[in-house]
Amino acid sequence: MTESNNTIKVAVLGHRGRMGSEAVAAVERAPGLELVAALGRGDDFLTLVDSGAQVMIDLTVPESTRDNVRFAIDHGIHAVVGTTGWDAQALADLESQLAEHPEVGVLIAPNFAVGAVLAMKFSEAAAAFFESVEVVELHHPDKLDAPSGTAARTASLIGKARREAGVADSPDATQTDPDGARGAVVDGVHVHSVRMRGLVAHQETLLGNTGEQLTIRHDSFDRISFMTGVVLGVREVAKHPGLTHGLDGYMDLGL
Amino acid sequence: MTESNNTIKVAVLGHRGRMGSEAVAAVERAPGLELVAALGRGDDFLTLVDSGAQVMIDLTVPESTRDNVRFAIDHGIHAVVGTTGWDAQALADLESQLAEHPEVGVLIAPNFAVGAVLAMKFSEAAAAFFESVEVVELHHPDKLDAPSGTAARTASLIGKARREAGVADSPDATQTDPDGARGAVVDGVHVHSVRMRGLVAHQETLLGNTGEQLTIRHDSFDRISFMTGVVLGVREVAKHPGLTHGLDGYMDLGL
Amino acid sequence: MTESNNTIKVAVLGHRGRMGSEAVAAVERAPGLELVAALGRGDDFLTLVDSGAQVMIDLTVPESTRDNVRFAIDHGIHAVVGTTGWDAQALADLESQLAEHPEVGVLIAPNFAVGAVLAMKFSEAAAAFFESVEVVELHHPDKLDAPSGTAARTASLIGKARREAGVADSPDATQTDPDGARGAVVDGVHVHSVRMRGLVAHQETLLGNTGEQLTIRHDSFDRISFMTGVVLGVREVAKHPGLTHGLDGYMDLGL
Amino acid sequence: MTESNNTIKVAVLGHRGRMGSEAVAAVERAPGLELVAALGRGDDFLTLVDSGAQVMIDLTVPESTRDNVRFAIDHGIHAVVGTTGWDAQALADLESQLAEHPEVGVLIAPNFAVGAVLAMKFSEAAAAFFESVEVVELHHPDKLDAPSGTAARTASLIGKARREAGVADSPDATQTDPDGARGAVVDGVHVHSVRMRGLVAHQETLLGNTGEQLTIRHDSFDRISFMTGVVLGVREVAKHPGLTHGLDGYMDLGL
Repeated sequence: MTESNNTIKVAVLGHRGRMGSEAVAAVERAPGLELVAALGRGDDFLTLVDSGAQVMIDLTVPESTRDNVRFAIDHGIHAVVGTTGWDAQALADLESQLAEHPEVGVLIAPNFAVGAVLAMKFSEAAAAFFESVEVVELHHPDKLDAPSGTAARTASLIGKARREAGVADSPDATQTDPDGARGAVVDGVHVHSVRMRGLVAHQETLLGNTGEQLTIRHDSFDRISFMTGVVLGVREVAKHPGLTHGLDGYMDLGL
Repeated sequence: MTESNNTIKVAVLGHRGRMGSEAVAAVERAPGLELVAALGRGDDFLTLVDSGAQVMIDLTVPESTRDNVRFAIDHGIHAVVGTTGWDAQALADLESQLAEHPEVGVLIAPNFAVGAVLAMKFSEAAAAFFESVEVVELHHPDKLDAPSGTAARTASLIGKARREAGVADSPDATQTDPDGARGAVVDGVHVHSVRMRGLVAHQETLLGNTGEQLTIRHDSFDRISFMTGVVLGVREVAKHPGLTHGLDGYMDLGL
Repeated sequence: MTESNNTIKVAVLGHRGRMGSEAVAAVERAPGLELVAALGRGDDFLTLVDSGAQVMIDLTVPESTRDNVRFAIDHGIHAVVGTTGWDAQALADLESQLAEHPEVGVLIAPNFAVGAVLAMKFSEAAAAFFESVEVVELHHPDKLDAPSGTAARTASLIGKARREAGVADSPDATQTDPDGARGAVVDGVHVHSVRMRGLVAHQETLLGNTGEQLTIRHDSFDRISFMTGVVLGVREVAKHPGLTHGLDGYMDLGL
Repeated sequence: MTESNNTIKVAVLGHRGRMGSEAVAAVERAPGLELVAALGRGDDFLTLVDSGAQVMIDLTVPESTRDNVRFAIDHGIHAVVGTTGWDAQALADLESQLAEHPEVGVLIAPNFAVGAVLAMKFSEAAAAFFESVEVVELHHPDKLDAPSGTAARTASLIGKARREAGVADSPDATQTDPDGARGAVVDGVHVHSVRMRGLVAHQETLLGNTGEQLTIRHDSFDRISFMTGVVLGVREVAKHPGLTHGLDGYMDLGL
């Protein structure tokens, strides 16, 4: 058996985009991965098959990601998908197709930053063990929405975990707050948004009990941080047939 | 059925000590718990039985904790133990005794601060997913040893998790460090100890990949923070027969 | 000349209050200070004179602080005042009286925590050198108002410094913020209020330029932190005749 | 009077280097600055004069910076210098030359990151008002030396400020530290060096009194942060004839 048999052959779809071009470079850097195709808008799908790719990374656009993944599954190619646009119907269709190809694995991950995934996971896990919990997110000042989607989702997961455990809302005696300094409330959890030149994407979950505080903070300094997760996904996808939603599905936290 | 049937009857051993007196107050404050006995050196063990205690909290001294727990088990009383001094032989003897009392639960916890337990757990769980990891602990300047026991144990758990996952040591190109600024190395993990007036006990685990950082920080502002964990232990011990080592054994992290 | 000539004789007014009792203990601990009187409501003012006090610490109530200070000045006793209630008219009257007693010093300080005073000072000094600046304050959940008075004052000082230097408002492209995650705006500066069990009083000023961030954080873990500033005030008040407003008036920052 | 009279004409020396190319871009972006020349190794000095440059930015190498600055002064061109290599003799020679050209300003700055300069300044200013002070610096893992030069210099400034104010060393009861977790000691100040993938250059000064902590943190995420200081230097250098050492000489901190 030659060494190449142990190498995972990888194709990148959307290779001219910001994320796609990072992925091309990441695959080329990663030991044990071999880039066999890099495709963009207008390229022929068959190249994907001809290249012998075992895993496809889809970093294209919502309009095309479903067709790309459908094609890959039909040809027995595993898929690691970072493109958004997968609604409930699309996911249901995907599950149906995968039922006919039980050996193929698909990972759909809204966030490939390993640290961001863990920060959300840990926040959810810790949520019910503290009397108080709030979320602070900090981003560059060109961001259009507040709070960030990740912060809102983190707060929702926290709120859900607390309700399921029967934990009361965080205590708050505030009577006077004329200008809204207490921030937004998402699923019972206060969320604060800071906008600051020099920052990229940062988030803290603060959890407090009498006499103690637990802080879980993630700093994303650069989009390149997603590549650690993309490479992790490529390495693991063949071992996880069927649909996995969220990179944490591949992370054995041993907890 | 009367309300008292749902109440857990609790005895505190070592009630005159710093921790013990906090525990007395914590039990009295906690809904659903009833303090039925508070004993110290020289008091009669039988009081424990006569009080109808269902759970005993042992916050005494290493010299007496084993006898206390043995007595409790023999009388069908669950035990929540914060006292140190349980070596391998003592634990083995305890397991033997518990085998004869399969309905009795014993929790031995080196740390009852919920946040500290979670910080250690999360640090261990995340350790293998990052290229770099270091630990910084910060304590009051009257502390005699460096690094702290908790920091050393956290570093050991991190080092073990990384070795088991086949992760390389954190990269470090340092060639010149004449005064030891890089700190201690415990099981391959750098540990730094800050001593500062005003602080109590604080610890950060820093984990880094290209483009991102995850920080898990615990601040212990006051010994009273242990009481959240003690009360959690009292509520859960009857549901976990046999020996449980570490408060996290009672914390369903859903991960 | 005996050593006692170098000792500063101190009286504490309001010695039964929370702050006053801390001040009594702090004076007794401080080298070079001697507690010669501790007075509360109903005690005779003349005791102050008879005690030979050189410096009076007023930690009483807004209703009596003016009379206390007036009496002290008339008797040539310097005053360190932590009581609130000094409006513009009261300060003007005080200045008039001091003009007749040019050797007497009075310090009126809204905040005696050395670190809090410096954090505010540094925030103001740095404000004009950064494109972005925001303030986050974190307090215990029993606090009734948001934002905290200190945070609002810090934001005002920052806003004023930026306007005077002709610096534009911090950039902010937010178009969608339905729940108010961006917090309050005080004098053009965003202020966020976190409420969390376990905390006391904490504040961060975040300042950002392209590629860098400066963070100035103050943690107040305990009211006892005010005593460092009270003792500093007592040591310095005789060297600063006339009225000084704010502890920073006694702190030579060498900048 | 035409608009160009208000514009500052700028030349960049070392325009092909990493810093120099950033400076070219920064000058082109900055309102009120006009790039009139960009020179590198082998280019003719006279271009500098012919371009009509009013201010020269020197980001070359230690071997040539002295000649560059000497030439600029002789031709009445102000100089903003980020190149290292200015020893005591070189500075003395520079002062002599400037004495003959009293209208010319020269700024030599070891660090152009505005936040880093302020962090060092504030650390020095605060040093004598706290019982404890330590420095933690965090850098990428490819750094060869520990501690960083900036951290060592910050510690020295802190140590000097404390000695001059008669403040005792930070308290430290450590008796057992077999592996050096307490880090390096520079001028009586403990310094800790963290090395972590994902980071660039970060530093914290921690200052503690009973019951409070002040933290001054600077994060440098990107070399581009130096450009804020370079542009500030260019705008101010003509207003400050003679030699100024350190960017803070141009920053009116109002303290």
